[in-house]
Amino acid sequence: MTEIKDKSLETFFTELASKAPTPGGGSAAAVMGAQSAALTSMVCNLTIGKPKFAEVEADMQALLEKSEALRVKLTDMIKADVDVFNRLMATYGLPKETDEQKAVRSAAIQEALKEATEVPLTCALACREAIDLSRLAAEKGNPGVISDAGVAAMAGYGALKSAALNVYINAGSLKDRDFAEAKLAALESLLQGSEVAAEEIYRIVKTKL
Amino acid sequence: MTEIKDKSLETFFTELASKAPTPGGGSAAAVMGAQSAALTSMVCNLTIGKPKFAEVEADMQALLEKSEALRVKLTDMIKADVDVFNRLMATYGLPKETDEQKAVRSAAIQEALKEATEVPLTCALACREAIDLSRLAAEKGNPGVISDAGVAAMAGYGALKSAALNVYINAGSLKDRDFAEAKLAALESLLQGSEVAAEEIYRIVKTKL
Repeated sequence: MTEIKDKSLETFFTELASKAPTPGGGSAAAVMGAQSAALTSMVCNLTIGKPKFAEVEADMQALLEKSEALRVKLTDMIKADVDVFNRLMATYGLPKETDEQKAVRSAAIQEALKEATEVPLTCALACREAIDLSRLAAEKGNPGVISDAGVAAMAGYGALKSAALNVYINAGSLKDRDFAEAKLAALESLLQGSEVAAEEIYRIVKTKL
Repeated sequence: MTEIKDKSLETFFTELASKAPTPGGGSAAAVMGAQSAALTSMVCNLTIGKPKFAEVEADMQALLEKSEALRVKLTDMIKADVDVFNRLMATYGLPKETDEQKAVRSAAIQEALKEATEVPLTCALACREAIDLSRLAAEKGNPGVISDAGVAAMAGYGALKSAALNVYINAGSLKDRDFAEAKLAALESLLQGSEVAAEEIYRIVKTKL
């Protein structure tokens, strides 16, 4: 089967729109996040090597390395979201006739839910990083392409808030409340200040246009 | 040449990250917008036909028709952004040796700038519509997939703010200030309340998870 990242944009949108349960919002979040990282890379690539911006050359090289690693990570998360969803759905399909089967099924569901909480949390972490990287691009990148840093900030913010929804859903169904609360606390710390950060980056960009 | 919508997600991200001037933030905005419309369609498609949601069946059918039309429109805008950018760049390349050439070039640039203001404004309008459609999905859609409506709202908002940046850039270079001010006023009316709208939809979704 063709992996989602290898499908065309149009096919991806069509599958997203369809009644098939995947790809869904989790993959869409990863796609937005990958766009954010890619746009930060673009600003770096259009700044590096130009004598006019020699002063920030090293910063931009370091930023590009981070944004490219993040782009790879977020691209992989498009599939990770689908995989964890499918694993979770498979556990719901386990037999539940005998008490033993019920116990096995319930434990498997809970295990899959833990993973289905962690995967979007990892995505949210990467998206928060994408926002933070876009700030460096907005502050130090080539002003001629600075709007792309603003788009990177907005895409990263949209991606973070989107990934958060999948953490909420799955954490809500977890019986291990200590685990759930720890993951929700980690999520809150990622969300904390993210809106203000995205707005600030957007404002920095707007003043440079 | 392969149209962007027919390229794979991974290729799109790679080209976005590269130092080639297109695709850039304008195409990324259209991709986010198309994802927003697609996710509203997904909520509709997972609500329609289920006896449990018979009461909202007609609303969801009407919504699906709108979100699918919007998805097509926003998918087309990925290319429209590249095309208008290329046309603008071509005008900058016109000869400017004689006074007559300079006048012709300047007029051509201004004409292309008008188009380069209108194209992202049209995208912004579609993105605002995508946010508004996601509200109906959040309010009336199948609560089992409601998180996708929340992602649709965030993607639409990120797309709108991103498209706005391209309007600002090009309107800023226009000599016809009446035209520019009219387009900027139209943009402001689209932005007006969009943040509150996206937040409200997100909140509606979060309370239903």
